[in-house]
Amino acid sequence: MRKILLVPDSFKGTMRSDEICGIMSKAIKRHMPRAAVVEIPVADGGEGSVDCFLTAVGGEKKHVTVKGVFGEPTRAYYGLLPDGKTAVIEMAACAGLPLAEGRLNPLAATTYGVGELMLSAVADGATRLIVGLGGSATNDGGCGAAAAAGIRFFDMHGEAFVPTGGTLKNIARIDASGLSAALSGAAIVAMCDIDNPMYGKNGAAFVFAPQKGADAAMVEELDAGLRRLAAVCRHDLGVDLSEMKGAGAAGAMGAGMVAFFGASLQMGIQTVLDTVGFDSALEDADLVITGEGRIDWQSMGGKVVAGVAERAAARNVPVLAVVGGIGDGAELAYDKGVTAIFSINTNAVDFSRSRDHSGENLAITMDNIIRFAKALSK
Amino acid sequence: MRKILLVPDSFKGTMRSDEICGIMSKAIKRHMPRAAVVEIPVADGGEGSVDCFLTAVGGEKKHVTVKGVFGEPTRAYYGLLPDGKTAVIEMAACAGLPLAEGRLNPLAATTYGVGELMLSAVADGATRLIVGLGGSATNDGGCGAAAAAGIRFFDMHGEAFVPTGGTLKNIARIDASGLSAALSGAAIVAMCDIDNPMYGKNGAAFVFAPQKGADAAMVEELDAGLRRLAAVCRHDLGVDLSEMKGAGAAGAMGAGMVAFFGASLQMGIQTVLDTVGFDSALEDADLVITGEGRIDWQSMGGKVVAGVAERAAARNVPVLAVVGGIGDGAELAYDKGVTAIFSINTNAVDFSRSRDHSGENLAITMDNIIRFAKALSK
Repeated sequence: MRKILLVPDSFKGTMRSDEICGIMSKAIKRHMPRAAVVEIPVADGGEGSVDCFLTAVGGEKKHVTVKGVFGEPTRAYYGLLPDGKTAVIEMAACAGLPLAEGRLNPLAATTYGVGELMLSAVADGATRLIVGLGGSATNDGGCGAAAAAGIRFFDMHGEAFVPTGGTLKNIARIDASGLSAALSGAAIVAMCDIDNPMYGKNGAAFVFAPQKGADAAMVEELDAGLRRLAAVCRHDLGVDLSEMKGAGAAGAMGAGMVAFFGASLQMGIQTVLDTVGFDSALEDADLVITGEGRIDWQSMGGKVVAGVAERAAARNVPVLAVVGGIGDGAELAYDKGVTAIFSINTNAVDFSRSRDHSGENLAITMDNIIRFAKALSK
Repeated sequence: MRKILLVPDSFKGTMRSDEICGIMSKAIKRHMPRAAVVEIPVADGGEGSVDCFLTAVGGEKKHVTVKGVFGEPTRAYYGLLPDGKTAVIEMAACAGLPLAEGRLNPLAATTYGVGELMLSAVADGATRLIVGLGGSATNDGGCGAAAAAGIRFFDMHGEAFVPTGGTLKNIARIDASGLSAALSGAAIVAMCDIDNPMYGKNGAAFVFAPQKGADAAMVEELDAGLRRLAAVCRHDLGVDLSEMKGAGAAGAMGAGMVAFFGASLQMGIQTVLDTVGFDSALEDADLVITGEGRIDWQSMGGKVVAGVAERAAARNVPVLAVVGGIGDGAELAYDKGVTAIFSINTNAVDFSRSRDHSGENLAITMDNIIRFAKALSK
């Protein structure tokens, strides 16, 4: 084999995507030292997404001090890809849950720093921004980021303020005319792997705020605030967020990215594959290896394995899915373009015992897959 | 792929070799309908060995009434292979443990019927006999079979008798001159996968008689009887059984096969591979699939996977081992010629839960292996 592409999702709870790439790559190089191996760790939009892109295509990690979760100066970063035009931002860098540990408060947490990172990136020459939504401690509907970028929010007394989760309900008017011209001219993609709406029982507050420290009363308050924000966005910006899938991502940052920045919400895997030039990389590839913690009918809904397989199948490149478990409906993957599925379970032992051996078991499984592939492709 | 050979060992406690062949074959035919699939279920010498040979090469199952475990008339059988010259006998057919259930008594159990089956086979024209040792209820050192074939045993009073486990100690002299000429002219191979000696702490009585119903005192008595038999064989027949590996198989039937019938003791897999013409079948084969319940350093000692892999590797045919578990030292299999090992564990669950899904899991695993092989061999 001349060229193999590795595009695994993380195995939730056991291995990161880049770790998996490393183990897979080692097995290939042991048996096929002349094969080109392309490692594409898959960013999910959360913490580590910038590194994933930098690993996949190279580029530079830029450090910037911006406002943190509660406004304090925070050293954050974004990635500038080798084209000099594409920047990757992960909101977790300045508004992430780990940064708020011990002082969780979704009423007060802000995405202001995310707006500052976006401004830094365009000041650096970026005209395309990829913003990873995920792992946030906020519930401000992206108002903080918008404020940083020049959008102004007014209360019923005409006073300008920067809304957070707890003060969304005070928004009376939004004036987007001050938005940074560089930002309004940029193409912005928000990576978002969930399809929850902005508000309501399946919305940002009800589903995600509890893990950010909200109690039941606070959830109601946050949800009411998001409804208020949606109403004003509709009236002042002409954007209907009410039914938008993914608007509820990252404390309704999904909604804000669309309403304030004109971003498109996209499945993370599609953004990754577009950005790394996956389709052209496929042209001379002999094999694609993807994978995830568990493959079943649920995992076929546009996530990593399905996303990778659909593109590879369109170019007739075989796709292996290497997984932690094969569940009901896994055979739907074949229709998506997966050639074959191999589980990493080398022995019949429970996950409670095997989880600590995931790396080792993946290594054994990959070693055997590549041994077989080598024998057959002679 | 044009031709695939299937030679799996049984998965002890879950699936027979022929069942495994069936599942593997189905997966291959689904994806490679034009491939020739050769199923070679592996006989281990015990119950079912005759059927394994008949499945692998065809032939006829002959039914004969002979003396059973305790001398009662028993409907038994042997297999006559298509060459008309090779007969396969399993001693379990007339001297097997299941036939003695509820009345186990290794002092009295006899292999007499095995000798009758051997005589029937040569009377039918067989000049090569394969005798499967295994699953026996006896501990008579093969004296019963020898007596049936014309060998005479005398006690210290010069009285002829047919020794059983309990009367081996009375043997004073053996006269082999009456052995059936047809049998003495036949080439006899005894299939034997253990290497226990005839007597002593690792011998037939101490290791295997307890499961045949012997208590501690009986074990001592049986062991003493085997020592007596060995001494007389040495004196009267000039055969030294004292250190012979495998002599302890099947209640020391291994010893009797050598001493009375001039048989050679052979690993079952080698007998199977020789008999089915495995080496020539390999010539146009693209792939061999073997397997076993668990592959580890212990399983590399000349058993099925290693036996199959050594021959296939000599002809550069890739060999897959599909297994229930991959244990420590499994990588030794690569040195024996195994190309790659795949476990059937589709999920991280304990054997207590997965054992009932072994067939299903094997089917899923084989399906994916063949899907991958098909994609790569295009």
